[in-house]
Amino acid sequence: VTNAPIIILVRPQLGENIGKAARAMLNFGLTDMRLVAPRDGWPNPDAGPAASGADIVLEKAEVFDTLAEAVADISHIYATTVRKRGVTKPVLTPAEAATEIVSANARSAILFGAERSGLETEEVAAARNIITVPINPEFGSLNLAQAVILCAYEWSKHQQLESPPKVELDPPAPQGELDGMIGQMFAMLDEQGFFYPPERADVTRSTLRNLFTKPAWNSLEVRTMRGVLSAFAGRHAKRSPKP
Amino acid sequence: VTNAPIIILVRPQLGENIGKAARAMLNFGLTDMRLVAPRDGWPNPDAGPAASGADIVLEKAEVFDTLAEAVADISHIYATTVRKRGVTKPVLTPAEAATEIVSANARSAILFGAERSGLETEEVAAARNIITVPINPEFGSLNLAQAVILCAYEWSKHQQLESPPKVELDPPAPQGELDGMIGQMFAMLDEQGFFYPPERADVTRSTLRNLFTKPAWNSLEVRTMRGVLSAFAGRHAKRSPKP
Repeated sequence: VTNAPIIILVRPQLGENIGKAARAMLNFGLTDMRLVAPRDGWPNPDAGPAASGADIVLEKAEVFDTLAEAVADISHIYATTVRKRGVTKPVLTPAEAATEIVSANARSAILFGAERSGLETEEVAAARNIITVPINPEFGSLNLAQAVILCAYEWSKHQQLESPPKVELDPPAPQGELDGMIGQMFAMLDEQGFFYPPERADVTRSTLRNLFTKPAWNSLEVRTMRGVLSAFAGRHAKRSPKP
Repeated sequence: VTNAPIIILVRPQLGENIGKAARAMLNFGLTDMRLVAPRDGWPNPDAGPAASGADIVLEKAEVFDTLAEAVADISHIYATTVRKRGVTKPVLTPAEAATEIVSANARSAILFGAERSGLETEEVAAARNIITVPINPEFGSLNLAQAVILCAYEWSKHQQLESPPKVELDPPAPQGELDGMIGQMFAMLDEQGFFYPPERADVTRSTLRNLFTKPAWNSLEVRTMRGVLSAFAGRHAKRSPKP
């Protein structure tokens, strides 16, 4: 895990929200949480249940009386704000901030304010950059854990987590297998007088070939389709037996 | 708003979670929700309070008895799954799915399963693609609203919302202003005998020039710094008055 930012909750009110933030963090591999003057003290019995198993984050959480102490060892501080304020600092999206954080040469931290009020102006002043989530201008209602999860998620995109679930599809079947299937089908259709009138036959065949080329079926799927065709052929044979 | 996907909650259990999903959606500009067989019926009195004002989404929500009915008019169906399963479908990240959805030529929908169990295998079968959020392999605990918000957030990146809060910083001051400030400072330092020994003076000046070029101060900031220097000069003058 490279350059994981520290998540700093400034004056959080509800233990439940601290727990939810911990859960949001751990989902995306962040484990370092700091709390500045949590309203109801620390530890808080409401945090654990809300963390849904992310206890490690809560156990490791460090508590500070002031923001200044909490960021004393941090080189790159980002302050999250919901709305743009009259601050002359670069405003980054979570994605832009994540890109900076992973390539930074020193420790980064992201500050999140109290649930209702957010960060105070002087708290924002401690940060070199602001992170604002671009949000529906007519409905901005991100809660604390959601703001945390979006930042953690963007950071995680730069980590190994990103790659795992990639496609493990079987490759499309070799063209010969597909042609075999299409040939079987054409023969069946021919038998039914499908390609009529004869002068349209080539166009119709071409249309069908395109149609069945599109799905990029793998070998198993092609075999399955041939089974389907064979079943049709058999059923047809049964329904109208040759005399 | 282009190509907004429809969010389909399949067999959601708690009204509260439906409300939270609505809130997550509207934050990022999605308004079309469909419910398939909500466990406790619809409307559900627990949904409204949890939506925190995203009532429009709940009011417009359409309810269906079966998934088949809910997706009958949808061309591109994405199924969200937490863990990879033995399904031979492309697995996309929310970001990749969003890119597809915005450039799609027809309506898209994203399916989310019940809170505990997720989507059933036959429900996933209705989708051409799977969306899986790349997550901490040792702690995957995304709830319904969080899964919804990540998909909505990725979609919103392609919308107009993306651009608003960009940097509105004042540009760096013209070099002449910076030079004026540096000149003032050098003169003050010179007066103090700072540039000693003389053979090191050029290197020291260069070091300082680099140092003050780095912050890219704007005109106001340069003027402020000059004010600071002037104050120092004044204070110094007071402290050691010329006889």
